[in-house]
Amino acid sequence: MAVETPRPAFVPNPAVRRLSYYLRQLESYQKKGRRTVSSKQLGVALGYTDAQVRKDLAYFGQFGHPGIGYKVDELSSHIRQIIGTDKTWGTILVGAGNLGRALLAYAGFESKGFRIVAVFDSDERKIGQSYGSHHIRPTSDIRLYVQEHRARLAILAVPADVAQDVADDLVNAGIQGILNFAPVALVVPPYVALSSVDVAIQLEQLAFHLHSARKKA
Amino acid sequence: MAVETPRPAFVPNPAVRRLSYYLRQLESYQKKGRRTVSSKQLGVALGYTDAQVRKDLAYFGQFGHPGIGYKVDELSSHIRQIIGTDKTWGTILVGAGNLGRALLAYAGFESKGFRIVAVFDSDERKIGQSYGSHHIRPTSDIRLYVQEHRARLAILAVPADVAQDVADDLVNAGIQGILNFAPVALVVPPYVALSSVDVAIQLEQLAFHLHSARKKA
Repeated sequence: MAVETPRPAFVPNPAVRRLSYYLRQLESYQKKGRRTVSSKQLGVALGYTDAQVRKDLAYFGQFGHPGIGYKVDELSSHIRQIIGTDKTWGTILVGAGNLGRALLAYAGFESKGFRIVAVFDSDERKIGQSYGSHHIRPTSDIRLYVQEHRARLAILAVPADVAQDVADDLVNAGIQGILNFAPVALVVPPYVALSSVDVAIQLEQLAFHLHSARKKA
Repeated sequence: MAVETPRPAFVPNPAVRRLSYYLRQLESYQKKGRRTVSSKQLGVALGYTDAQVRKDLAYFGQFGHPGIGYKVDELSSHIRQIIGTDKTWGTILVGAGNLGRALLAYAGFESKGFRIVAVFDSDERKIGQSYGSHHIRPTSDIRLYVQEHRARLAILAVPADVAQDVADDLVNAGIQGILNFAPVALVVPPYVALSSVDVAIQLEQLAFHLHSARKKA
């Protein structure tokens, strides 16, 4: 029995992030054939308390079964519904350089609910070429493509110096969510969701902790 | 005048992360030749309040000048000292697939204080090949290399199913910080710093917000 309550007005971002971690863990259980899990076991696997697990899930409904805990398939399916990945999101990729091709080659997206439906680049030497099942399209076609195919998500894997211009084009074309890999802080309107992967910043966080540990030692 | 106080016992992770954003913004000012900036201007550029900027920096010392604000070069240099990237961190890369090669091709690390000093792969067809200035070395050489060269940071760009084994090897070899790109939750000892980039999780965060906005509309 899973009673889904109305979506709450506000869920803190860290809780949304943990939903993804719960889902990854549940998918791992599914692969191993595990059928049920308690909030405590799910918490231990991820380093959270059982109270945290219950609180995060309680934003969205009551998913546990007395004496059983959570049914793995059921909770996994509910979290996908909550996130919105029970359906597949057609996602466009802009930038067919090394990083773009690495993302194209990564087969894991599709099982997570994301399908790269079109690839764009501004380099005329790349346009028309094929990577896997994709022909590289010119960036000038983005607007028409997005409108015709109602694509809502874009992955931006272009050099830093053109990233803001391309982001503006994506927003104007109707894209509502951008995952940015360019090492630059993009400005987008408040109604567009933006997430950034900046490898240098991640390395700096590690360096800080190592540097800090050495100073204390 | 910049009086650096002793490093505090505890700095919240979000504040450490903001240090990186301050540094990126200051570097951008440096490129444009800007000499000074106030906490308010720095905050506005990044979407933080001036109180937040001052509080974050106050963990590490007093860097402002009355009537001037911060000197861009000076604050940038201080933040690099705090993070530890006033010196270059020799970083090893494990995995020379598409993603590894994308990371190798990205020239931005060196200016941020990270130099990829060696590249390893377990694929015999790749070992000995050159990418840029790097020869791919066998993963069996990691331990010796790390010990001889005292490398402390590693970037892990290997498939999910071998990531934990490679991470164990890195830890045993003496690596103290790992940036993981494999879509799997790694377990490392508490004295090893770990940061993960999981593209599917980032996409899920975007999907949640778009899905959520549509439900409310």
